[in-house]
Amino acid sequence: MRFVTCRYEGKTTWGAVTEDETGVIDLGRRLPDVPNLSAALKTGRLTEAKEAAGWADADFALADVEYDRTVPFPGKIFCIGVNYGGRNAEYEDATSSNKPSVFIRFPESLTGHKQALVRPPESVQLDYEGEIVAVIGRRGRRIPRSRARDHIAGLTLGNEGTIRDWLRHAKFNVTQGKNWERSGSMGPWLVPTEEIGNFEDLRLQTRVNGELRQDDTVASMAFPIEFQIEYLSTFITLEPGDVIYTGTPIGAGARLEPPQWLEPGDVVEVSVDQIGTLENSIQDEVLS
Amino acid sequence: MRFVTCRYEGKTTWGAVTEDETGVIDLGRRLPDVPNLSAALKTGRLTEAKEAAGWADADFALADVEYDRTVPFPGKIFCIGVNYGGRNAEYEDATSSNKPSVFIRFPESLTGHKQALVRPPESVQLDYEGEIVAVIGRRGRRIPRSRARDHIAGLTLGNEGTIRDWLRHAKFNVTQGKNWERSGSMGPWLVPTEEIGNFEDLRLQTRVNGELRQDDTVASMAFPIEFQIEYLSTFITLEPGDVIYTGTPIGAGARLEPPQWLEPGDVVEVSVDQIGTLENSIQDEVLS
Repeated sequence: MRFVTCRYEGKTTWGAVTEDETGVIDLGRRLPDVPNLSAALKTGRLTEAKEAAGWADADFALADVEYDRTVPFPGKIFCIGVNYGGRNAEYEDATSSNKPSVFIRFPESLTGHKQALVRPPESVQLDYEGEIVAVIGRRGRRIPRSRARDHIAGLTLGNEGTIRDWLRHAKFNVTQGKNWERSGSMGPWLVPTEEIGNFEDLRLQTRVNGELRQDDTVASMAFPIEFQIEYLSTFITLEPGDVIYTGTPIGAGARLEPPQWLEPGDVVEVSVDQIGTLENSIQDEVLS
Repeated sequence: MRFVTCRYEGKTTWGAVTEDETGVIDLGRRLPDVPNLSAALKTGRLTEAKEAAGWADADFALADVEYDRTVPFPGKIFCIGVNYGGRNAEYEDATSSNKPSVFIRFPESLTGHKQALVRPPESVQLDYEGEIVAVIGRRGRRIPRSRARDHIAGLTLGNEGTIRDWLRHAKFNVTQGKNWERSGSMGPWLVPTEEIGNFEDLRLQTRVNGELRQDDTVASMAFPIEFQIEYLSTFITLEPGDVIYTGTPIGAGARLEPPQWLEPGDVVEVSVDQIGTLENSIQDEVLS
């Protein structure tokens, strides 16, 4: 089962993708009191949505939709920095720490699958970071890692797009390099946790114009997803619809020699076999 | 005019404080389609609210309310680090930067005036940071500083409470030290910008159990409020109801020798003559 947030004939809705991945079952129409995927997560209606979709025929073709951010109204968007095997070595300053770097993105910084990432006129240093995104499905505070998986509704993918030269405007905190409008993305869809095997077996790959740039498995995360749930929920309650960008492997454009920034016309694909492929092109911002 | 978010007889509402500061005019009741101050900001109804309150008698006594966070549902909560005269010197690592450190808090980390700040069992290092909080009243992207003031609906006060030992869990990003539930506050009320003179003349003072700990004027900010609006709106649209914690003066407990952390029973007051006084006591978290 794959849950999408999308527009069809100008109307925003959410739905389930048919098994052959050609059609969408319109859940916004079939569950009129659950207008979007965030509402489904917050009210615990995902199981009911699966049942409603299980017996239905497609309402429209997947090829005819425009995708929006999979979780349309995320309450909190956590991002884990400096994760995966070898990535610590890229950031010498971080090697002394035994806790993850945590920063926050606002929803406006994230667009959907097949939407263009926007390069602003203030910088040419737009860079990709392919990530697995954990979507919270059950409320909790101080969740032990042994029960963390029960709090994850499912996984999607993210491009945690970054304006590199704004990342280090200050010695601390990367907020201003991580929150340019539509500089990143989330999608293509949410795959429920029960349909995903061991997290450790997930292999994340990022390609730019078909060239493999990032390639690693969750097994090599310095801070596993279950640990992230435990750690974050120590200080704040995780709520259904919150999301965690769980960190990126080595191989972002900034770390190539020389650095290679994204340019208009480039296409970035973030893939995990068990989840799907998130694809975004790049375009320059059109100033109004 | 002072706008409060409060509970009276168990019901959450918002209102205007009478001129003698003894009563509250219930705006939730008088403007039934504007249920709270965030909605008033988002729909541009603050001027109308002022008019509705101007002719009215108090509906209940200010002494009888419980205060909530002044802006109940802030869309974005920006925090500016390392500001005010002398504060750079406290943080050697930051002196090389000519841009502000920017981090983000979630609403759950902030309680209201006269509510207790919560010290969690995981740390004894709860610390105060008195701040002026700018509340956005008009949407804008790439706002020039010369027009920044027009985008501020008004000012309130904040205690940008911090769990110090979690602030440096990672080399970058202070998220986990700044987002403990109810570790900070916002209040007591919103004072419209047009009732405040020059921002530079505002003098911010923080007292702990009556002892003056922080004392500085906005004139000595390294990054003035108008600059903050310009800088933040470069990368993301500022929306009505977003808030900016504009930075704290020297004198937080961490910088005293020896450091002095807040303890249950302590009372912290953050004051600006033109705005008011935000008061919070401290209590230990009660684990359920």
